[in-house]
Amino acid sequence: MTNDKANQMWGGRFSAGPDAIMEAINASIGYDKRLAAQDIAGSRAHASMLAATGIITDKDAEAIREGLLTVLSEIEGGTFEFSAALEDIHMNVEARLKEVVGEAAGRLHTARSRNDQVATDFRLWVRDQFDAAEQGLTALMQALLVQAEQGAGWVMPGFTHLQTAQPVTWGHHMMAYVEMFARDRSRVRDARARMNECPLGSAALAGTSFPIDRDMTAKALGFDRPTANSLDAVSDRDFALEFLGVASICAMHLSRLSEELVIWSSAQFRFVTMSDRFSTGSSIMPQKKNPDAAELIRAKVGRIFGAQTALMMVMKGLPLAYSKDMQEDKEQVFDAADNWMLALAAMTGMIADLTANRDALQAAAGAGFSTATDLADWLVRELGLPFREAHHVTGALVAMAEQKGCDLPELSIDDLRSVHDGITSAVFDVLGVHNSVASRTSYGGTAPEQVRAQVARWKDALA
Amino acid sequence: MTNDKANQMWGGRFSAGPDAIMEAINASIGYDKRLAAQDIAGSRAHASMLAATGIITDKDAEAIREGLLTVLSEIEGGTFEFSAALEDIHMNVEARLKEVVGEAAGRLHTARSRNDQVATDFRLWVRDQFDAAEQGLTALMQALLVQAEQGAGWVMPGFTHLQTAQPVTWGHHMMAYVEMFARDRSRVRDARARMNECPLGSAALAGTSFPIDRDMTAKALGFDRPTANSLDAVSDRDFALEFLGVASICAMHLSRLSEELVIWSSAQFRFVTMSDRFSTGSSIMPQKKNPDAAELIRAKVGRIFGAQTALMMVMKGLPLAYSKDMQEDKEQVFDAADNWMLALAAMTGMIADLTANRDALQAAAGAGFSTATDLADWLVRELGLPFREAHHVTGALVAMAEQKGCDLPELSIDDLRSVHDGITSAVFDVLGVHNSVASRTSYGGTAPEQVRAQVARWKDALA
Amino acid sequence: MTNDKANQMWGGRFSAGPDAIMEAINASIGYDKRLAAQDIAGSRAHASMLAATGIITDKDAEAIREGLLTVLSEIEGGTFEFSAALEDIHMNVEARLKEVVGEAAGRLHTARSRNDQVATDFRLWVRDQFDAAEQGLTALMQALLVQAEQGAGWVMPGFTHLQTAQPVTWGHHMMAYVEMFARDRSRVRDARARMNECPLGSAALAGTSFPIDRDMTAKALGFDRPTANSLDAVSDRDFALEFLGVASICAMHLSRLSEELVIWSSAQFRFVTMSDRFSTGSSIMPQKKNPDAAELIRAKVGRIFGAQTALMMVMKGLPLAYSKDMQEDKEQVFDAADNWMLALAAMTGMIADLTANRDALQAAAGAGFSTATDLADWLVRELGLPFREAHHVTGALVAMAEQKGCDLPELSIDDLRSVHDGITSAVFDVLGVHNSVASRTSYGGTAPEQVRAQVARWKDALA
Amino acid sequence: MTNDKANQMWGGRFSAGPDAIMEAINASIGYDKRLAAQDIAGSRAHASMLAATGIITDKDAEAIREGLLTVLSEIEGGTFEFSAALEDIHMNVEARLKEVVGEAAGRLHTARSRNDQVATDFRLWVRDQFDAAEQGLTALMQALLVQAEQGAGWVMPGFTHLQTAQPVTWGHHMMAYVEMFARDRSRVRDARARMNECPLGSAALAGTSFPIDRDMTAKALGFDRPTANSLDAVSDRDFALEFLGVASICAMHLSRLSEELVIWSSAQFRFVTMSDRFSTGSSIMPQKKNPDAAELIRAKVGRIFGAQTALMMVMKGLPLAYSKDMQEDKEQVFDAADNWMLALAAMTGMIADLTANRDALQAAAGAGFSTATDLADWLVRELGLPFREAHHVTGALVAMAEQKGCDLPELSIDDLRSVHDGITSAVFDVLGVHNSVASRTSYGGTAPEQVRAQVARWKDALA
Repeated sequence: MTNDKANQMWGGRFSAGPDAIMEAINASIGYDKRLAAQDIAGSRAHASMLAATGIITDKDAEAIREGLLTVLSEIEGGTFEFSAALEDIHMNVEARLKEVVGEAAGRLHTARSRNDQVATDFRLWVRDQFDAAEQGLTALMQALLVQAEQGAGWVMPGFTHLQTAQPVTWGHHMMAYVEMFARDRSRVRDARARMNECPLGSAALAGTSFPIDRDMTAKALGFDRPTANSLDAVSDRDFALEFLGVASICAMHLSRLSEELVIWSSAQFRFVTMSDRFSTGSSIMPQKKNPDAAELIRAKVGRIFGAQTALMMVMKGLPLAYSKDMQEDKEQVFDAADNWMLALAAMTGMIADLTANRDALQAAAGAGFSTATDLADWLVRELGLPFREAHHVTGALVAMAEQKGCDLPELSIDDLRSVHDGITSAVFDVLGVHNSVASRTSYGGTAPEQVRAQVARWKDALA
Repeated sequence: MTNDKANQMWGGRFSAGPDAIMEAINASIGYDKRLAAQDIAGSRAHASMLAATGIITDKDAEAIREGLLTVLSEIEGGTFEFSAALEDIHMNVEARLKEVVGEAAGRLHTARSRNDQVATDFRLWVRDQFDAAEQGLTALMQALLVQAEQGAGWVMPGFTHLQTAQPVTWGHHMMAYVEMFARDRSRVRDARARMNECPLGSAALAGTSFPIDRDMTAKALGFDRPTANSLDAVSDRDFALEFLGVASICAMHLSRLSEELVIWSSAQFRFVTMSDRFSTGSSIMPQKKNPDAAELIRAKVGRIFGAQTALMMVMKGLPLAYSKDMQEDKEQVFDAADNWMLALAAMTGMIADLTANRDALQAAAGAGFSTATDLADWLVRELGLPFREAHHVTGALVAMAEQKGCDLPELSIDDLRSVHDGITSAVFDVLGVHNSVASRTSYGGTAPEQVRAQVARWKDALA
Repeated sequence: MTNDKANQMWGGRFSAGPDAIMEAINASIGYDKRLAAQDIAGSRAHASMLAATGIITDKDAEAIREGLLTVLSEIEGGTFEFSAALEDIHMNVEARLKEVVGEAAGRLHTARSRNDQVATDFRLWVRDQFDAAEQGLTALMQALLVQAEQGAGWVMPGFTHLQTAQPVTWGHHMMAYVEMFARDRSRVRDARARMNECPLGSAALAGTSFPIDRDMTAKALGFDRPTANSLDAVSDRDFALEFLGVASICAMHLSRLSEELVIWSSAQFRFVTMSDRFSTGSSIMPQKKNPDAAELIRAKVGRIFGAQTALMMVMKGLPLAYSKDMQEDKEQVFDAADNWMLALAAMTGMIADLTANRDALQAAAGAGFSTATDLADWLVRELGLPFREAHHVTGALVAMAEQKGCDLPELSIDDLRSVHDGITSAVFDVLGVHNSVASRTSYGGTAPEQVRAQVARWKDALA
Repeated sequence: MTNDKANQMWGGRFSAGPDAIMEAINASIGYDKRLAAQDIAGSRAHASMLAATGIITDKDAEAIREGLLTVLSEIEGGTFEFSAALEDIHMNVEARLKEVVGEAAGRLHTARSRNDQVATDFRLWVRDQFDAAEQGLTALMQALLVQAEQGAGWVMPGFTHLQTAQPVTWGHHMMAYVEMFARDRSRVRDARARMNECPLGSAALAGTSFPIDRDMTAKALGFDRPTANSLDAVSDRDFALEFLGVASICAMHLSRLSEELVIWSSAQFRFVTMSDRFSTGSSIMPQKKNPDAAELIRAKVGRIFGAQTALMMVMKGLPLAYSKDMQEDKEQVFDAADNWMLALAAMTGMIADLTANRDALQAAAGAGFSTATDLADWLVRELGLPFREAHHVTGALVAMAEQKGCDLPELSIDDLRSVHDGITSAVFDVLGVHNSVASRTSYGGTAPEQVRAQVARWKDALA
């Protein structure tokens, strides 16, 4: 039974079928059934081409193409019975096709091999994920733009080392992430363009002696061109590794934003309020409102980069051409893709739902001597001090304020002049946080007008 | 409905239930149902303790304990309906328990939290895997011992840099892997001993004011002692990381053995013949017999170390105590454990089925000037040359043999004496491969007697 | 010149010396000179054994042993000239030894190979690092104990999800890290014991025909026993991988503590004040006091786990026995060890210098409804409510307090009774943070008495 | 002394200087001095811009620009004394500049911070490495093209699973790697284009109130444009991560080619002979000629991907903007870049020197029933059998040949017809390896004419 079925596929050479352990480690149908639609699309394009080039008859091609649609509808309808003895999606589909259309099914596998077939299927699947990632990233950028536009002028502390550094605007902070996700999107596009070549027709590894038309199948499947070396085409998993690499960097960006949301949600910061929809309670502590979604997204970089590590290690040192090790590619990419898309969607929802606590942000922005740099810059600009000297003067004033338990704007003019007698009361203009952020008008700076210009630029770009 | 159920668990604070995305990213029931048996065992021990310490009544405890058995049998029987709205295995079990036993169910969660509960469940699960790994490693070592004993005296080339270096014995080569897997087993034991502490009773993070008896639950669950710090107990995933670390090194060993099996199975080496049971055919090349199982095992180190990378990255920089990021621990460990156990079983089967081609091994052992070191050692021992000079003489003789297209034993005594006139025909005794391996009697060396001694030592140890 | 020198070592077979690129990629002397002391110790033990077993004369052995001391003093004194053409530390030492003692030097390399030599040297080096790590961990634990003892009774918020969960004590929090570092120390000890076997005498891969005494060299070098399989002994880098694995988990613990120190140092938390010695200023913002040391330590887990990844990937799929790939082991381990030791020392200094801001901790401990669980537990204990019902009552009271803008202890008895009329004013006893922590007396709980007991236990253990 | 100097830079706030441990963990000058040329180029561009915008005088700018050239020549000449107390390259250069030009030096740091300064310096350095990688990849592709052109018609076995699959040509196999390295080069170009934006002028994190001209500095330093968000600009290390990601995939390709070279160099394969220049001998086995360079290159993927892992983990979860953790970026990238360039150069040298053993390749190509697929395809094409049936017939014939101990072309026509009586002697035309490869004329196939077409295409592209 089971073994007989397997033997039907492999031919008569084997005296013993694979036993249970072998089936468990070898069969991929448990997960590669996710490639069913791609597999059938590839086979349909292949059948058309075989007919167009006269390798099989039009009648056989038509029977195959129709039969494959039947198989697809069975799979999509949930009535298809997958068999582990038939190992993988390719053999499962072909075996069923034979039942549906009879002998013609046996002509489909002409001039191809499972090696180029799976390489084609998997590329099609990954290509779809690049497209989904582009959409997910765009939606997230749009959610951030809404936040940025609304709070283009809201002040908050800008941190370095999680210490208050200088006041910035909420919009500016949101736009920093727009830039990150825009780079991610740019990487998605580059990677998608690079991988959009069709392996079909590379056969097992050497190409084929049948007079196939690889341009025809490539075009039918939406590829830009056929791959240029058949050995490489069946051995290459760069497209999967690059997908994981792009996803990992994006997941790292998501982890940074998540970390900020977790910290900002703490009772000590209270910079933001997360919606109930993206928070959870506690089974023992009734008062808790936990930023679970942010924490779960923060963790995804581990999972996705773990997948990259896995596949990189699998590919290390493999001789050409196809080795079975490469079968480990799919589960890693499936899991990483699912989690990446989920993380993008959850983050988009969280950002859309997020309430920035404008008052708390503003109160924090003014604390911690955050305008010390403005003071130093004023000393340079107005009194002509070299920056290094201005830095010393400012340091002394900060120390004085700290000792008095006040902030810089609360020092008296006499206090200020006791450290440098050139200081005038005009200095107080730069010590307020709103003046501070408004002054940072350099390109890409935190001034509200700069932020609004960047928001406008991105709204156009995403429109 | 869905949300109502969730709200029943979290209490009345939330005005909105989690939406679909949140449920998708938050719910763990899809995978943590694998902890059902551990969860129920932990709850039963907890209930007994609560009764023994007078925190709940004996009657309630008995109802809970019986009800939990009912739930367990439903889960094992496949009739239990898991609900994603109830998030995780703990809430799924408890909700069903309430249906089964009524109000008493509500007393079970006294003096504990999901934080210590999941830490306990997961430790129990991982502990079982350590035990399974120990068994799997022992079986693999035994399969290797059978190979080693049979071929203790069979000669084969010993390689460095995949270049023939010196003759060794098949048994010796097999025993090298016995040593590796023995170290893995030693790591399994150390890690299991270290992690065998019970978190139950740590509650959410601070311990509890109920007069619980943590030694009692620890003992009931087979732990050596309770954990000593409740904050640490709910925040710690060292046991999972150490499990993955031990598994990764073992998987690396498996990858090395797999690589050798793949190379040895090539037409060029023909050192071994794999059984049909652990080989597969090709869909396009009828003559192929591929070492798929070995390749798949070779790949597992990527997958398992990828899981370690994932969890290490998840844990990086998490503040105490529990953070939701840690929920990502389970899928990584489940997948790694499944694949580790499968790889051990498949390798054990492959080794048990493996045929070493004794003639091919012996023929290769004598080629490539493999006894050059024996010659050099003879020059040191018999003629008193310093090793470095002996090395030069040998190098010249190898060059001569290479030029003549013969191997060292085929050089004439005149040839030999033309390079160093102290050489006598006694030297031919050390140039044969069997004499060569027989001479390497240093402890741990390749001489058949040494190999047999090591086989005997390990057979005793594993008996 | 250069090539001649190289050829002197390799014998006469090569017609061309390695060119510049080859030397650059091949030579290890740039870093393996750190093994000089270990190499010389190994060679001295080997020479003694060769003499004791009659393989070389006592006179030669004595000359070698003395000459090696001379070479060592030249290296330690900085007068030794390392040569890249001589590739590695072994050949550099031997070449110089020949200059110092003449022909006898050529007898040292009898019955060994660079393969067992480097395996021995590197094990000795790694063993020293395990010892250093044990010391570093002990010092860090002691610094944490001082903090814990001093603040055993200081209250602070215990967090989960970085949200206030329940009050805990400063001492309890410090002791959580003592447990983590204690596990690290336990791993250090297990790994050290496992790796303390001597490869010397395994020769190139097969053992040797010389009548060596491996027990003698093992004992002389402080090893517990010789390795049991010569093929394994020269191919194994488990000890290095396990070192990196142990270091990685410890570095992860350090990253968590660092993260907490960074967050606690923020203006929003102000839980701790770092000493100036472990902080830095800003080149542009004069008021900044940055927790640089904590951030740098937080990053070390990346570096150390990166080294583990590197070596794991290097070892993946290597056939036996020695392959040159394994030369990549040393730089990874050197760098990881240096950074681990540095991170331990810096963290010890930071903790020793750290000031916990007791008032800020206490103020935060009482905020955020942190005693809600105490209230729920009181309802269970005193009124006999099932926990789940108590959880609901508490949730309603938290919602009420939140609406009134007060904390739980500030609700009136009427407020409380409006939700559950069984509540009496005795409940106020459990709503204070000091009472809360004092009540958590379960083993490992946060009660000051529990913390003091753990401190005492560890002070004894480390004494 | 040391501390005084440090205090001069940080201002007067600190009462204690960093002690030895802090200096050891904090100072980056030990490695970031590699950025000296970039740092000085950046400062010179900044000074010009400050003068052009009237922020400093032309005279000061000129003094600064000339002084920086003096400092650069001191560094390049090896006479510069780096100071760890001055922490990093920026402060070392500025401190020396002050000695050279006096007070004007203090005006250089106007409108910038070390945060944007190091981001700029490091980008410039990484950009140079992308350019070097492009050159290195091009040289390697050219070396492969020479091999491919010479051996476009040489037959060799094509492997899958390291089992003989079908004959291919040497040129085809070489061209597979040309495709891989071409993808690497494409990734290099995309990444370089993406990262070519100038952070200078982002200042600490918020931009600046000085009327700077960021386009001017961007253009002067060869950047395409200034970065668009100052918070992002100082927090972003995507360019370094993407560099490491591109390098890792390329290193994986190199590991595959290295693995093949190691296997092909074995006595069992003898497919290639490596030059002496890229091989080494053995200290104990005089006959050895080891493919050390190939093994060392094979290992580099571990090292480089380890660096990627390290930096990815460092960046995980960092809040904006600059955190000191990010200082760990440079050593990882420096080490990875050095090793990548070295590996490319060594592989280029190895390939240029490599001798393919044409006879051994051809002999192996015909063994192992390598033309079984050709037979199956003939049955489909000439007899009209469905492929699956042809596959069965071929399998039976392979089994027959195996039993007779011969290869397929040595079966008699009667043997062939005993399995399928439609077979004619015309079938022998397709059973020879040269006919086999010549027939695979599909685009990207192994036919010599196809290989020559691809060689021509790439020679044009690289010209």
